[in-house]
Amino acid sequence: MISNSLKQKLISIVGPENVEDSQSARLVFSYDATPLYQSMPDCVVAPRNTEEVAEIVKLCNEHKIPIVPRGSGTNLSGGTSPVNGGIVLHFRHMNRILELDEENLTVTVQPGVITQHLIEFVERKGLFYPPDPSSMKISTIGGNISENSGGLRGLKYGVTKDYVLGLEVVLANGGIIRTGGKLAKDVAGYDLTKLIVGSEGTLGIVTEATLKLLPKPKTKKTLLALYDDIDRAAETVSKIIASRIIPATLEFLDQPTLKAVEDFAKIGLPTDAKAVLLIEQDGDAETVQKDMEKIENICYEQHAISVQTAKSEQEAHALSAARRSALSALARLKPTTILEDATVPRSQVAAMVKAINEIAKKYDVTIATFGHAGDGNLHPTCTTDIRDKEEMERVEKAFAEIFEKAIELGGTITGEHGVGQMKAPYLEWQLGEEGIRVMKQIKQALDPNNILNPGKIFAKETRKRVILHRS
Amino acid sequence: MISNSLKQKLISIVGPENVEDSQSARLVFSYDATPLYQSMPDCVVAPRNTEEVAEIVKLCNEHKIPIVPRGSGTNLSGGTSPVNGGIVLHFRHMNRILELDEENLTVTVQPGVITQHLIEFVERKGLFYPPDPSSMKISTIGGNISENSGGLRGLKYGVTKDYVLGLEVVLANGGIIRTGGKLAKDVAGYDLTKLIVGSEGTLGIVTEATLKLLPKPKTKKTLLALYDDIDRAAETVSKIIASRIIPATLEFLDQPTLKAVEDFAKIGLPTDAKAVLLIEQDGDAETVQKDMEKIENICYEQHAISVQTAKSEQEAHALSAARRSALSALARLKPTTILEDATVPRSQVAAMVKAINEIAKKYDVTIATFGHAGDGNLHPTCTTDIRDKEEMERVEKAFAEIFEKAIELGGTITGEHGVGQMKAPYLEWQLGEEGIRVMKQIKQALDPNNILNPGKIFAKETRKRVILHRS
Repeated sequence: MISNSLKQKLISIVGPENVEDSQSARLVFSYDATPLYQSMPDCVVAPRNTEEVAEIVKLCNEHKIPIVPRGSGTNLSGGTSPVNGGIVLHFRHMNRILELDEENLTVTVQPGVITQHLIEFVERKGLFYPPDPSSMKISTIGGNISENSGGLRGLKYGVTKDYVLGLEVVLANGGIIRTGGKLAKDVAGYDLTKLIVGSEGTLGIVTEATLKLLPKPKTKKTLLALYDDIDRAAETVSKIIASRIIPATLEFLDQPTLKAVEDFAKIGLPTDAKAVLLIEQDGDAETVQKDMEKIENICYEQHAISVQTAKSEQEAHALSAARRSALSALARLKPTTILEDATVPRSQVAAMVKAINEIAKKYDVTIATFGHAGDGNLHPTCTTDIRDKEEMERVEKAFAEIFEKAIELGGTITGEHGVGQMKAPYLEWQLGEEGIRVMKQIKQALDPNNILNPGKIFAKETRKRVILHRS
Repeated sequence: MISNSLKQKLISIVGPENVEDSQSARLVFSYDATPLYQSMPDCVVAPRNTEEVAEIVKLCNEHKIPIVPRGSGTNLSGGTSPVNGGIVLHFRHMNRILELDEENLTVTVQPGVITQHLIEFVERKGLFYPPDPSSMKISTIGGNISENSGGLRGLKYGVTKDYVLGLEVVLANGGIIRTGGKLAKDVAGYDLTKLIVGSEGTLGIVTEATLKLLPKPKTKKTLLALYDDIDRAAETVSKIIASRIIPATLEFLDQPTLKAVEDFAKIGLPTDAKAVLLIEQDGDAETVQKDMEKIENICYEQHAISVQTAKSEQEAHALSAARRSALSALARLKPTTILEDATVPRSQVAAMVKAINEIAKKYDVTIATFGHAGDGNLHPTCTTDIRDKEEMERVEKAFAEIFEKAIELGGTITGEHGVGQMKAPYLEWQLGEEGIRVMKQIKQALDPNNILNPGKIFAKETRKRVILHRS
């Protein structure tokens, strides 16, 4: 609990309207988009500028009070639930786009800017900010930076980290640093920018970011390829890349996902197909035309039962909006939805999808799989009910085995959601003792009192490895 | 000095032929491509595999002996000169391309592979490894990773860091970790891959790297635009980017550089022009054609006196090879050549070039300037003579003022050469005390005995800031 004198100090920094500790306010910030990880903060504080953030952090460091920075809480790894209590630092006031620099192709923003607002803002200027997590309508840039969010355009354009050029960061001692700048090249010392991006709020608190923009691609085309066999869809993915084409988007949906999405979006998706690829290419008209023709041929060579090209921008938009709704659509089926992001080298997508289905069968749980097949980033999604303790045990075992399989195939336990609390018990499986040791040393060096988002990334206890029973 | 018993231990690890401590062997490795930073190592050791590297590092850590990892020593920051003595770890045996994975578009290499060999190897398969430092004929991938090397294609394609997906690293305690993998997305813990890239051998020793490849662009076109005014050339750079075109290469050469290069390469460069832009675009034929037409128009709008398009691949190749020879060409003029890499936001290129010329005049030193204008990465290059102590003092003052100006314009003291020894006294000007403190904490955490390339990045003493006398 936070003492009254500390509360008064917080109020003197941000004003009384920006310090909330009522039961209802604390409840609102006790959970994020991840099921199973609710815990109550002591207090919710909304700073108005960097100096206020620095003062709050200094105070918390003196009193060893946990701070959990938070945007919209859309993360899927329990990254913003205040597991050790303390303060949730909420960025609702720091939500301005500070500068668009068209000569240097950069935009400078505060952490509370909504991702989609930023995307629309720069697109109106003929520019392009590629990272597009499915939660982009709600998620904030600060959250995207903390989690190094991916998205549907990751295959061709990379992830959030690839677009962060410079940061203003408040350190655990309340010191403020600036990293990088409007620079395409900068090798002055260690790359703190890229260390902070994806560090899940555990190394410093981002208060401003300068992001790289690209010219907006002139055209975009979208197609949907239907398969009566999952393997053939997965093989199509490999063949497209091997033919030296990198599409902007290369998404995979299995039949259960497809049915759920169609039931939710009602846009006439072919629910009788066993698997679907949603493929987009962008760029100059001629190039897009040529690429899409080649892609269509490859789809048919891999025995697609049909290939449908979107006839209009509206139709294309409806398709990708439907894909983005997959989590919401699946979430309607059962009380609890657990969406994971096991990621493998793209050549292993077919093997991974097959393994997920076998594991689901083995543990008798319902798992639908969709995801960014082009970059090997799959989303096995379990629809279940946390009140059913016996089933939840099976769900947990199934996911442990999925993580183990991803690592075995040269992959990662998390492609874009972050470790948070959810993956922490599995991280050592992937990184080994030595890898964890190095990361802990960095954490200890930068945050010796462990006040910055404690209880995330590093587990109290590593889970025992499952022994894989291959059929 | 290394004791005889330690030498015997090293011999027992790598064999007698791979431990050299003769005067001549030590002399060869006492300097790199940077003038002014010669110091003798005690011993040169050439490991044959990762396990040998780990054993050597373990031994050195026990005995607190400095280790300087080294490829070809082409760096320009005094990064591989063994300032505290110790062992130079030379990667001549670990120079194999281990695997090309065409499905995942990755190549896995040992650190001693020559950059150009790798580039040619993947291009024969229709693939593309973009980072192309001017030293690529000689430099190694290990060196490129340590320095996060840039190159001529940085504007469109980024730098070495953007292509490193995974690393095998030997840590200061001799432990071996693997970071990343053949993965487009991986957020499992802190990004050690990108922390190690560009850390100049001070945090770990890279023994293997998995690199990202792209499909090779189908065509490339090259043009040369001549100006009788430096400002107009610099403004052309901004206009091209503002018109939403990102060329593959956008190089700037001033008249002194141009004359030196023509004298060296003898390919008929127009030495009467005051400034030249060398511009390349690659991609699909139609796109390249359209972009180059637009670029040509912009050049003329900005009062280029002429624009010449290369008529053949040979002619284009000759032009870019001539540009790459700038350092060698300038180095013929005087006994000592000091090439810097002050980098600014690209909108500030004109201001920076102007400042460099004013500073050269003020201190009465000869500075030619060329560089990657598209990404603001300039190479002011001073031709001088280290034996002339009085002139050298003026040279040093001039460069200090150039660094200060770069920082003032929102830039960096080093865009692609690294800090090494040369920039260390200036680093705090850019990062501030707090920034340096964080980096030192990371160094201390990962290498508590300071055995990994000591004396680099962090200066014993920060130089006093020059007060800028603006005219």
